[in-house]
Order: sequence, then structure tokens, then C-alpha cells
Amino acid sequence: MPLELEPITAPGRAFVERAEALVPTLRERAAKADREGRFPHENVASLREAGLLGALVPEELGGLGVTSVHDWGVALARLGRGEGSTAIAINMHLGTSRALVQRWHAARASGDTAGAEAAAGPLRAIAAGQLVICATATEPGTDFLRPNTTATPVEGEEGTVRLDGRKIFVTLSPAAQLFAMNVRVPTEDGDRIAFAFVPASAPGLEPQDDWDALGMRSSGSQSFRLDGVRVPASSLQIAGAWGEWSPGLLMGRTLANQTLLGAFLGIAEHAAELARHAANTQTKPKAQGPIANLPGVQHRVGELEITLAGCRAALATAGRALDERLEQAGGQPLSLEEAHAAMADYQAAKWIVNQGAIEVVSMAMDVAGGGAFMSGNPLSRLYRDVRAGPFMQPYTPTEAREYVGQVALGRSPKG
Amino acid sequence: MPLELEPITAPGRAFVERAEALVPTLRERAAKADREGRFPHENVASLREAGLLGALVPEELGGLGVTSVHDWGVALARLGRGEGSTAIAINMHLGTSRALVQRWHAARASGDTAGAEAAAGPLRAIAAGQLVICATATEPGTDFLRPNTTATPVEGEEGTVRLDGRKIFVTLSPAAQLFAMNVRVPTEDGDRIAFAFVPASAPGLEPQDDWDALGMRSSGSQSFRLDGVRVPASSLQIAGAWGEWSPGLLMGRTLANQTLLGAFLGIAEHAAELARHAANTQTKPKAQGPIANLPGVQHRVGELEITLAGCRAALATAGRALDERLEQAGGQPLSLEEAHAAMADYQAAKWIVNQGAIEVVSMAMDVAGGGAFMSGNPLSRLYRDVRAGPFMQPYTPTEAREYVGQVALGRSPKG
Amino acid sequence: MPLELEPITAPGRAFVERAEALVPTLRERAAKADREGRFPHENVASLREAGLLGALVPEELGGLGVTSVHDWGVALARLGRGEGSTAIAINMHLGTSRALVQRWHAARASGDTAGAEAAAGPLRAIAAGQLVICATATEPGTDFLRPNTTATPVEGEEGTVRLDGRKIFVTLSPAAQLFAMNVRVPTEDGDRIAFAFVPASAPGLEPQDDWDALGMRSSGSQSFRLDGVRVPASSLQIAGAWGEWSPGLLMGRTLANQTLLGAFLGIAEHAAELARHAANTQTKPKAQGPIANLPGVQHRVGELEITLAGCRAALATAGRALDERLEQAGGQPLSLEEAHAAMADYQAAKWIVNQGAIEVVSMAMDVAGGGAFMSGNPLSRLYRDVRAGPFMQPYTPTEAREYVGQVALGRSPKG
Amino acid sequence: MPLELEPITAPGRAFVERAEALVPTLRERAAKADREGRFPHENVASLREAGLLGALVPEELGGLGVTSVHDWGVALARLGRGEGSTAIAINMHLGTSRALVQRWHAARASGDTAGAEAAAGPLRAIAAGQLVICATATEPGTDFLRPNTTATPVEGEEGTVRLDGRKIFVTLSPAAQLFAMNVRVPTEDGDRIAFAFVPASAPGLEPQDDWDALGMRSSGSQSFRLDGVRVPASSLQIAGAWGEWSPGLLMGRTLANQTLLGAFLGIAEHAAELARHAANTQTKPKAQGPIANLPGVQHRVGELEITLAGCRAALATAGRALDERLEQAGGQPLSLEEAHAAMADYQAAKWIVNQGAIEVVSMAMDVAGGGAFMSGNPLSRLYRDVRAGPFMQPYTPTEAREYVGQVALGRSPKG
Repeated sequence: MPLELEPITAPGRAFVERAEALVPTLRERAAKADREGRFPHENVASLREAGLLGALVPEELGGLGVTSVHDWGVALARLGRGEGSTAIAINMHLGTSRALVQRWHAARASGDTAGAEAAAGPLRAIAAGQLVICATATEPGTDFLRPNTTATPVEGEEGTVRLDGRKIFVTLSPAAQLFAMNVRVPTEDGDRIAFAFVPASAPGLEPQDDWDALGMRSSGSQSFRLDGVRVPASSLQIAGAWGEWSPGLLMGRTLANQTLLGAFLGIAEHAAELARHAANTQTKPKAQGPIANLPGVQHRVGELEITLAGCRAALATAGRALDERLEQAGGQPLSLEEAHAAMADYQAAKWIVNQGAIEVVSMAMDVAGGGAFMSGNPLSRLYRDVRAGPFMQPYTPTEAREYVGQVALGRSPKG
Repeated sequence: MPLELEPITAPGRAFVERAEALVPTLRERAAKADREGRFPHENVASLREAGLLGALVPEELGGLGVTSVHDWGVALARLGRGEGSTAIAINMHLGTSRALVQRWHAARASGDTAGAEAAAGPLRAIAAGQLVICATATEPGTDFLRPNTTATPVEGEEGTVRLDGRKIFVTLSPAAQLFAMNVRVPTEDGDRIAFAFVPASAPGLEPQDDWDALGMRSSGSQSFRLDGVRVPASSLQIAGAWGEWSPGLLMGRTLANQTLLGAFLGIAEHAAELARHAANTQTKPKAQGPIANLPGVQHRVGELEITLAGCRAALATAGRALDERLEQAGGQPLSLEEAHAAMADYQAAKWIVNQGAIEVVSMAMDVAGGGAFMSGNPLSRLYRDVRAGPFMQPYTPTEAREYVGQVALGRSPKG
Repeated sequence: MPLELEPITAPGRAFVERAEALVPTLRERAAKADREGRFPHENVASLREAGLLGALVPEELGGLGVTSVHDWGVALARLGRGEGSTAIAINMHLGTSRALVQRWHAARASGDTAGAEAAAGPLRAIAAGQLVICATATEPGTDFLRPNTTATPVEGEEGTVRLDGRKIFVTLSPAAQLFAMNVRVPTEDGDRIAFAFVPASAPGLEPQDDWDALGMRSSGSQSFRLDGVRVPASSLQIAGAWGEWSPGLLMGRTLANQTLLGAFLGIAEHAAELARHAANTQTKPKAQGPIANLPGVQHRVGELEITLAGCRAALATAGRALDERLEQAGGQPLSLEEAHAAMADYQAAKWIVNQGAIEVVSMAMDVAGGGAFMSGNPLSRLYRDVRAGPFMQPYTPTEAREYVGQVALGRSPKG
Repeated sequence: MPLELEPITAPGRAFVERAEALVPTLRERAAKADREGRFPHENVASLREAGLLGALVPEELGGLGVTSVHDWGVALARLGRGEGSTAIAINMHLGTSRALVQRWHAARASGDTAGAEAAAGPLRAIAAGQLVICATATEPGTDFLRPNTTATPVEGEEGTVRLDGRKIFVTLSPAAQLFAMNVRVPTEDGDRIAFAFVPASAPGLEPQDDWDALGMRSSGSQSFRLDGVRVPASSLQIAGAWGEWSPGLLMGRTLANQTLLGAFLGIAEHAAELARHAANTQTKPKAQGPIANLPGVQHRVGELEITLAGCRAALATAGRALDERLEQAGGQPLSLEEAHAAMADYQAAKWIVNQGAIEVVSMAMDVAGGGAFMSGNPLSRLYRDVRAGPFMQPYTPTEAREYVGQVALGRSPKG
């Protein structure tokens, strides 16, 4: 249990405590949802009741007002102790809500009352538990910077574009009323990358109900086809050139994804808890009591705890670093170099947490013994869930070291 | 593909080639058997047709006459490339058949014609594909040296004992006609550990049909209750004091289990193959072709291949070492120290192969990308199957380092 | 450079900045001092001039008033970027000065004016750069809790005890005016462990001038013989039973040693800096410019930076955790369980930093190439210096996992 | 001691036994030679007396007739147990002698009596202990395939070229009568890579006496300047295009360097031996006898032994694989693909042995405790010597994974 994480701000403490209170409920529901591969709408209801859908919404708009990325990550870890699927699912919503908050602040800072109100509306709805937003950024055969879901003007419908393409791993989608997604916008000056917002009810937005995965089975991560989905051209938020990092895109990705690591830390923490429990309750003749008496069990638990401590430290330090960076920026945009540095911080933490959490779960299984291999044992689910971590974008283990190396060597990574 | 393993004896080559020929068939059946958690009797039929049930039976008794542990392990790896469950299942049978061969040789060497024939009978049946034997050595809450399944004399039935207890992880059991198991035999001079042989049809031997696990789902590893199972007292083969290693027990465990590592190597080799295929066929814009163009993919594949090469080297070297040790012994029993040295060789290989195979599968998933997380992708099954390795007895990761350390330090481990 | 550490308090910032300012000077002197295996008194002079000898002394007594363990560790890392030997040497002094500060606070809190002044005196001298104290806790063939340097009453000299024994690895000793050490005090109720304070000039305290080591060659870590060293019996501070952890001993060891990790982090940071420089300045034909162009170099640098980030995160998080723990305690003693939890935090960080720093230096050598193997290249010194980490007490890699495992499993470690 | 390596051929056995017999002598001399950084000519004399200079020379030419790469590697490991510097130094000579043997066989096979005799002469001299050859292939700022030491025709001296350039890490050079080196030969059809042979006495071949390194200090690895060294143009052996791998260059590099791994394995084996000895002889109160009683020591030794077993297995399996490959080729050249496969085998083994040996030495230091950090303790030398491994060409850790990945993915690496 070395280096356990605690929140550092008052709103963060509320977030963490409420998340922690949900752990028993989430655990209770986890096995069934996993077995059925079903999205547990009841978990979203519980999060709503706990006021967590609006965790990042400012207090004056009805939310908890959490601003610390550190605390957000810690709260995710608490939810992850309950169930990984729900933790990653809700983070998709939280990340998008945070982006809205940023827009609200920016509009207010620049005296743009209309813009502020345009953001305040959905934020109030989020805080009231009436709006769940889901962000989707993944497509088959390409990467975030190079989406192939394309916005093309509709002939004869001035000011309207149609979106066509495919999105995969759309976590949380069964519960969402609104989808935020990256799209490709051809222009005369080259392609642009933009964010589009599509209501769940939009004609042509077709959920595929095809989520059947190794783990995170109740995360609702189905794929979607977009077949002529109409949105107003003016609603597209241009974010930069297609295929190129900009400070905004980098920070957006970092802010939306860094806290996801908490979910995997939480899974590992749950596994560690199960391992300790197993060690203190299982007996063997040669242990003359609980197997926790055996030096070999003590060693494996020690190894597990050290690895877990490393994950905690990485998540916490990356959270504080991002908090600090944002505070120093004071709402001003960062340079490309600073944004890459922020992403590199996240990537270092991501590698440590994703790999470490997998190891922790595996070591917990060693401690718990053969029973951990049975489908009915939660450790066997955690082993499946935790493996989702390295797949999370950006970056995967085939990309992260090169990215971090390039940043450290003073280069500006291209993808 | 560095350091690929090949057989080193002629019978071994036959074993390996026939195993290799079964790979496509085993792969074809694997997904369905895994999904249904069903024992694939058709795989046993295929092994029978290929003459592999009698792989270790001497040629003069109708078998392939494989004697090399190295080659046996390599053949297991080929089967493991097909399907892990079938590979570990058949190894339970092969290990027991090898013990019978040893008894046959010993009886012949000592001029014990009756004893030789007693072993030859089942060996001929094995070679003819009429007999499948399953060894079971695991019970809940104790270890191999301290079984609690107890043989007690039946009052009024002179020469008969009853067996009562419970066995778990009885891999291959749905196909077995005969079960070999370790039992506890109370005597006036203290408890003994003995091997008992129980026909599948014996009253009181009750399969529990309770195998529902994370992986190796088609290995038929259900548990059994023994409730007053009658066997002749004379059929018990006393192997030593309960709770203590003897050279015979050590060598028996090493010989029966070392080649199991092949199954896990084979799983890793299959994963590596899938990773290479994915790298050469998946495309991404930034790769300007297959993702194998990306340095990051090349690095991860290289890392994977180096880890895999280490697994291969460990299995091969441990196989050769055991071949050599047995040849030098020339049929004579080894000392306790030599037997511990043999077990330590196996344990070193076990750690390297079990941990390495898990890493290889995980790295293969990194290379193959998010699709590898889907239930329909074989890599997601391999990830589940490969995790069975460290649970295999003896020893698990909570025990192995201490064991090896004690042997290296000149101590005689107690458990 | 991910997750770079910065101080979090104002006095800490002063400490860190002054330490950072010394880096060029320390580096400049390092090679010669290493080659000669000589203690660089000029470095102590520089630290004195920079006001760092009194870094932990309260401002009202003339010091910098640093109280944050986090910041202390960060400052050590900055010194470690300069030279590891000097960083660990000065930490021996800082740790002892902190213990004195604690005594000063405790005395003031309890209204013990005389006790407060007894501590204030040396603290003022420390802040004035007139007193360097060196703590020594290691003896051959035993451990910290079981010192064999024994305090025995001197017959005919009422109130005087003599100390006899041997202390090894007495880092900083050539510069110290005072030595603090753990000793064994036989009593009627069993042996006690106590701290004794011995002036450098005390007859019978014999430096052996025998420091000739692989690394940390300019740390002055010679051994001492104590041959009838006289000290007043009343000056011995009894700390608990010989051979048993008490909360005070645990916290004392944790506070004195945790920040040492900073020195090893600093060494690793220096190595990383040299690696980046080498990558950006060395050229090779196949790189068509600096080798930083090569994907393999980028990968290795990325791997190095991720490992380094993990070390930083561990040190920072452990520092903050200890700060938090001390603040919560508010000067009150911790329970044995809390003190073990604090030690376990430190141990987790120690494992990560010590092992990680070794790996970072080794990877830096990979990047820098064969030149890094030459004696004149600073990396070859860092490789030697960084290996001192795991030897630092408590605990070494043969003990740490067992310790952490026992604490995590709710047991109270005995040694 | 799991998976200890033994020779598999009769000449190999002789080589290994004679090498093993030298271990005490080599150890005895090691500390002094290391401290002085002096080349120990007395070790070459001992090797000569033991007949090991001609280990690879055919028996009919007076040598031991070793042909097995496996056994050669095992013998190197035995020498490495004695002293690493001498092991790597002699391997430079052995590798070159093996190339000569290959030429002798090829000439005989093609009926080229003169060519055969041209090779037989130096081979007889080698077997008689009268000739030591040193191969050098490294230059600053470039790689093996792109040497900048250039052969240019000497105006007015028909048939003579001059060599100008610089060679570094010329191990064994103080003992060599002849130097083999790769050079660049400009031609009308582009640059060629060729091997040149230069007598130690050649004017313009200038040893720099500049070997002062972290480890391998008695390996005589000084650098050389070549300033107008004259050699007959006809003596240059063209090996392919400058900057491109050919099968011959690949196999030459693999054959010359693979066995070097033995030296690093031997160093690790020596360290393991010292660790076991320390564990069984050092005592501590809490161990109630030797520290080998402590579970933590047993665990660390077990971990060490497993890592060491992995190194042994990798070296042995790579040796057997190369033996097998050469036997199958039957003296015929391999295809480029086969030659890359052979190199990839070697690279996998190299990574495992180089990294593993470093870890083994470090873990041995953990077991032996603080004394291992003292200059007088052989472990502190082994820690320095063993770090040379990853620098050995081809390939270093910044290159090897990419290389292996490319080969595994069916690509033909370019450098």
C-alpha cells in the first residue's frame, strides 16, 4: 500500500470520496455486466446520483468544480477499483465536459457572452445529469491526426456538411446523447482536422452493437458508421492541419486521456487488495497458517506493491505537473514545444502505469494461486480489463518510446 | 524467428512433424472450443490418428519411441502453436505414459518379466490409441508433497483401500480412461505419499464438470471428488514420506512437467506469427504502407523476438540437460542432490518460459493493435491461455526463486 | 526530461537554486577527486559559502529553514547532478541537522528552554558553517538495529561510558567535527540501542583512511575504530530495545535516508543529459547527421527518459507523502504501524530510484557509445557511482521486498 | 547453477578443460593487471603453454581442431570465469584464426594447393604459439560496413597501396604480430570494403597506448593510427561493396563475435560463484548463522541463478544453431537471407547475455553486500568489466532490436 494517493483540492476530495463510495456497488455489478458484455446503464445512473457527471463543471453551473488533473486521476482510480469499464467510460464524458469548461472560461475571459452561454447550457445540463457526451477519436487503419471521417459540403444545402466514415472503440456510446469526434475537412489550403458534435439521434449515425472484447466488456465501446450525417458547417471547430500536431490538439489529447490512467491504476489496486486478502486467508500446511507466512508470498507481495507504488507515483506526478503547467499558462495557449513536453510527461506516466498495472495484476494472480484463473474470480476479469491500457491512444507501446525520445532530443514529433 | 527449435533425434523428428501437421486443424477448432469451454474430443481423435498418443511408447510396443525430453518439448511447442489447451492436456497423458515406459525398462532390466508385461499391456493400448491416462496432482489448500486425498483400509475388505478427497485442475479428464494420482497413506511409521491408479468408471470418482476458466478453456480441467473409491491396496505405489522430496518424486515431477513449457512457448510462437502477419498487412498513412515500415513496430517486434528466443533457448537447453542427465544415470536412480539440480534446471527454464511467453503475447498485441483486443481475434485467446503457465506446479512464482536459491546455496528444499 | 522536479516551498526553492548553481563547480572537480579517491574539502567549502550546510536549520537560527522532505530530495538531486559523492556526503550532515531541529522544536513545545538552547547552539554553528556532523550507522556483520559498538561504564569514572567497536562507510567523515552513531547499551532489562555523539577529536576515535571503492570515491567513507572512546553516560540518547524497531527509530532512519535517493536520481539525470548531448553531437554516416536521427537512438533515449521519469515520480511522491505525514502528525509521535507505513513508502521509492538510476546510466552509455567506456568520460564514473545506491541502508535488495510485503500484509517486520 | 554448460565435441572438451585449468591463474593475476591497466603478456604465455592459441587450428596443422562454435563459446566462458580481459583478447585472435582455417579448407576443397599452403603456414605458426593475430574493425564516428581507413595506390609504387586512418578498441594489440582490419577501397565502380593484413612492425602503424577504460582494463584495447602503411595491393581481400551487408561479411562478423558472449557469461558465472560464497560465509545476527539462511538472500540468489541460466541457454543454443547451420551449408556460402538469420540468432543471444550478465553481477553485489563495493573485492571489477558487453559490435542496444525486428519482418537490414 505504499504511496497511496489522496486528493489535494477540496473539490477533488469531494470527487474522490463520492467515487470511493461507489466502489462496493460497482464491484457488485461487475461480474454480471462482464459476462453479458452489456453496458451497465445502472452505473451511469449511480454516477449521476452521486453528482459525478458534473464533476468538472464549475460550481456556479451546478458541478463539483474540480479543476485539478491530479485529483481527477485519483478519482478515476477510485472508480477503477470498482470497475474498469465504468471508469474509462465516464472519463470519455469527463474529458469532453472539461473541454467545454475551457471554452466557457475562454469566452468569459474575452467578454464573449454568447459564446459563454453556448457552453454554459450543456454544462448545466451535464451537472444536472441530463447530458452525457462521448468523445470518439479512433478509426481503423489510421491515427488521431489523420482521421478519414470526412466532412463534405452538401450540394444544395448551404451551410451544411455531411459526415461519412467510421469510428471504433466508441466507449460509453450507449449512454451518450451527444458525440464529439475528430473529422477531416478538405479545404483549398489543404485538409484540416476539426471537431464535430453529433447528437445520438442524428440520422446516419449508426451504432454497430459490435463490442465483444477480451476485457472492458461493459464499456459499451461499439463502433459507429457515419453515413451522410448532417451537421451545420459552422459547428465544426477547426483544430489545425490534418496530419500535424498543434499545441491545442496536443493539450486536448493530453487532458482528455491522461486521467484514463487512473482507471488502470484502480484495477491494479483492486488486484493488490485481492492478493493481500488471499494471502491472509488462504492456508497451506507448509505455511502453518495463512500463506502470508511464506517468505515467497511476502516477496511477491512486496514486488507487487513496489510496482504499484511506481504506478501511483507516476500518475500523481504527471497530474501535478499538468496542474502546474496549466496554472502557469493562466489560460494562455502553450507553445508547441511546451505542449509536446506536456504530452511527454503523460507518455512517461502512461508507459509506467499501463505496463506496471498489467504486472501488478499478474503478480496478484501469482499470490492468489490457481483459483485466480477461474472465471468466477474477479482477478481473472481484472487480468482481461487491465490489458486495455496499452491500446489507449495516444500512444501505444510501438510509438511511445520513439515519441518521448524525439521530444527529449529536442525534435518535434510528426505523428 | 531467432533460435527456432528443431528435434535432435529421429523419433523426435517424427513426433515434431506430426504435431506440426496438426497445427492448422487445431487452430481451426480453437475459437469454438474456447468460446464453449468444451473439451474437444475431436482433437484427441486427431492426436490418436496421428499416432501421437503413443509418442513416448517404445517402437517395439507400437509407439514412436521418443526418448528425448528435448524433442518432446519441441513437439509440445508445435502443438501449442495449434492450441494450448490440447497441448497441455495431451502432456498429462504423455507424462504418465513415460512413467510407464520407465517402469517397463526397469522391470526388464531386473528380469522381472511379469512386471514388464504389466507395463507393456497399457503401453500397447496407449500406442494403439485405446488408452488415455490422466495424471492429477493438485488439491485445494495444500501442495503436491502433502496430498490430503487419503487411502484408508476398508474394514471387512482385506486388501482394499478407499480413497477419499478432492482433486482439482484435472486436465484432460473428459478423455481419460485411467487416472493416476498422488495420495496420502497413513502408516504406523508416519504418512506416506503414494500413487494410485483409478479407472474413470470407478464408483465414487465423481467429475464435477466445473471447468470455467480465464483460459485453457478447452483443456477439460474440471475437479473431481473421490468418495470411497475402492482400489487394491497392492496397487498403491509408495513413493516416499508424506511432505518430503525424494529423488524419485523430484524426477517424476520434473519429467512430467518440464515439457509442458513447450505448450506455452508454442502459444508465444503463435502470437509472434500473428504479430508479424499484422505488421506486414496492416497499413497506416504515416507508415506509407504496412506498419512494418515503422521503426517503432520494428523495435517492438525485435524485442518480442529476442524474448521469444530466450524462451526457446531455455526450453531447449533444459531439455538437452535432462536428456544428458538421464543418459549419464543409465537407468540408475539419481541422488537427492542431483534430482534437486534437475528440478532447478527445470525451474529456471520454467520462469523464463512462463514469464517470457506472457510478455511475448502482450507485445504481439501491441504490434497487432486494438483489433487484438477483440474476442474474435486469436491473440485475445492466447493472452488468456498463456497466463496459465505460472500456475503450473511445481513451482509458482511465489515459490520458484526461493527454491532455486536454496538449491544453488547447497540447501535441500523442503517443499 | 519528462516529469522534471521542482521545489514546492519557498525555502526549498532557495535550497534547490543554490544547489543548482553549484553544479558546474562540482562537475569540474569531480574527475580529479574520483581519480585520487580524495575527499574534496573544497566542495564542503562551496556548500558552506552557499549556505547549504544550514539548509534545514530554522531561519531564526540562521538557516534556510527548509522543512519539506520533498524539496530536500529535489535539492539533493541537483547536487547529485553535480557530483554524487558530495551529495551523499552532505546528506549525512543534513539528516543529523534535521534531527537536531526536531529536538529543538520538541523542547520548545514542551517549554524545555534548556533543552531548546542545547539544540540551538549546534544549529547556529551549523548555519554559520562552523559545524559539520556526520552520522554513521553501519557496522560489519550486523545491521542497524543490532549494533555491536558497545557503551560500557568505565570503572572508577562515574557517569562515563566507553565506546568500543567499529563503524564502516562513514561518509563525510574527513570533514566532520562531530559524529552521531548508534551503539549498544547493555542494561539490566536487556540491551538498548542508543545514539552517541563523539567529537572528531575524541581520543580512541580512529579513522582508518581505508576508503578505496568502486564509486563514490570522493565521499570520504572510511571506516573507524572506536577504542575506549569516553563520552558522558548522560549524553547517550536511548532509542529503544536493541534489535527492535520503534516508531522513533523507523522515522529517524526514514528521515535520514529517504532524501539520499535524490543523489542517485541526480546522477541519472546527469547521465541522461550526457546521453542527449552525445546523441545530438555525435555523427555517423548511416544517420546522415547526428545519431539522434536514428530511430534506435530515439527509442533508447525514450526508454531512458521513461525510466528516469519513474525515478523522479517515486522520489517526489515519497517526499510529498512524508511531508504530509509529518504535517498530520503535528509533532506528535507516530504509531509503530504508521512508522512502518512511512518506511514502506520510502522503500518502494528506494527500489524504484536505485534500480532505475542504474538502468538510466547504463542506457545513457548505450546512447553515447564506446567512448562512454573510457575512464575520462564522466559516464564511466557515473556508472560506478550510481551502483552505490542499492547498498544504502535500510534496506538492500535482499531485504526490501520482504519488508514491504510484510508491511502490506499487515505484519510488523522484525529487522 | 542451473543449466551449466559443457562441451559437446571431443576437441571442444579439450579446449574447455584447458581453459578451466587456467582459471585460478587468471584470477590470481587479474586484480593487479586491472589496477595497472596493463596488458598481461603472462596470460598470453599461459594460453600459449596450454595450447589454446591454436584451439581452432586443425589437428593436422598442430592445433586442437575445435570446430564447434558451441564449444568455443563454452571455453570462452571458462576463460571469462578467470578474467574477462584475457577472454575477449584471445577471442580476437581465435576469430581470425578461424577465418584462416576456413580459407585453408576452401583452398583444399578447390584443389588450390598454393592457397592452402598460404593459409597453412600461419596456422602452423599459430598452433606453435609463434603467431598472434589481432582483428580490428572499429573506427570512431562510423560503423563496420563503412570504414574510413582507406587504401590508396601509392604513386610510383606499382602494386602497393597505402593505408591511412584510425582504428579504436584494438583489443589484444600489445601481443599481436599481425593485424587484420577492414578498410575502404575506392574503385571505379564505387567503394569496396576489404580486409587488409598488416604486420605489427609495419612503418606507419602507430599504437597510441591510450587504453584507460572503466573495465576490461588489461585487454590492451588501445587505438592505432595508420599513417601511410604500405601493403601489397594484391593482399587486400575484397569482401563486398562499402556500406552493404553481404553473406560473407555477415557470417564473418557473426563467427568472429558470437563466442565473445562467452566472456561475459564467464564474468557473470564468476560473480554468481562469489555471491554464493558470500552468502554461505558471511553471518548476521538476524540470520542466526550465514546470511544464506535469510529468505531474502535465497530469493536474490534464485533470481540471479535464473537470469544466469537464461544467459547460458542463449549462448548454448546460439552456438548449436550456428554449428548446425554451418554443417548444413557444408562449406557452401549462405544466402543473404540465411546469413541475416544467423546474425539475428546471434543478436538475440547477445542481447540476452549482455543484459543478463550485467544484471547477474549487480545481483551478486546485492548478495555480497557493501564489501562488494570496495576496490579490492573482485565483484567491483566484474561490475566494470561486464559493462563492456553491450558496446561490442555488432550490434549495440541502440541498434539490435531494430535489426532483429527487420529480419523477423522479412526485411533486409541496411546497416
